Amino acid sequence: MAERLSADARRQALGSLPGWTEVQGRDAIAKTFVFKDFNEAFGFMTRAALVAEKMDHHPEWRNVYKTVEVVLSTHDAGGLTKLDIELATTMNAIAKLTQA
Amino acid sequence: MAERLSADARRQALGSLPGWTEVQGRDAIAKTFVFKDFNEAFGFMTRAALVAEKMDHHPEWRNVYKTVEVVLSTHDAGGLTKLDIELATTMNAIAKLTQA
Repeated sequence: MAERLSADARRQALGSLPGWTEVQGRDAIAKTFVFKDFNEAFGFMTRAALVAEKMDHHPEWRNVYKTVEVVLSTHDAGGLTKLDIELATTMNAIAKLTQA
Repeated sequence: MAERLSADARRQALGSLPGWTEVQGRDAIAKTFVFKDFNEAFGFMTRAALVAEKMDHHPEWRNVYKTVEVVLSTHDAGGLTKLDIELATTMNAIAKLTQA
């Protein structure tokens, strides 16, 4: 099972994850992605869902039209692990492609 | 543009929409769908997204693993319209097929 990241490791990881921030009062990270329209937003979600399912590590996310708010945390570990960093990194890459 | 439903029309529509309830403090309806796993939950979302895009009427929704919380309201009309009832009805039908 993935282990929770130390404060140092988390800080370092966030440093190379544009747009992701720590969630207040919870060991989790969050980012709000804004796209051009629903087509782009749900396209992003679909690509991210396939990756998440393959990783067996799933986001908490909320979609309203062109906006997707994502929260990542590893429930089994009770906090942030390398799985979250990996998924966040992939989501940033997918968003970049989706918005291109 | 779709017009807001009267209190009577809303009550009648909700009567034939199993699982949907009025949202407190807002002219909107909500339902939490629970599936077997993420595959089913996101499968439901994908089918609903295609319908929503075609209708040009989109849900507010949140997904956490096998759960999908949906809120429907017509922003342009400032409240519930027949578009919401139509999308809610379709979502119930899709969920039933997805869970079959």
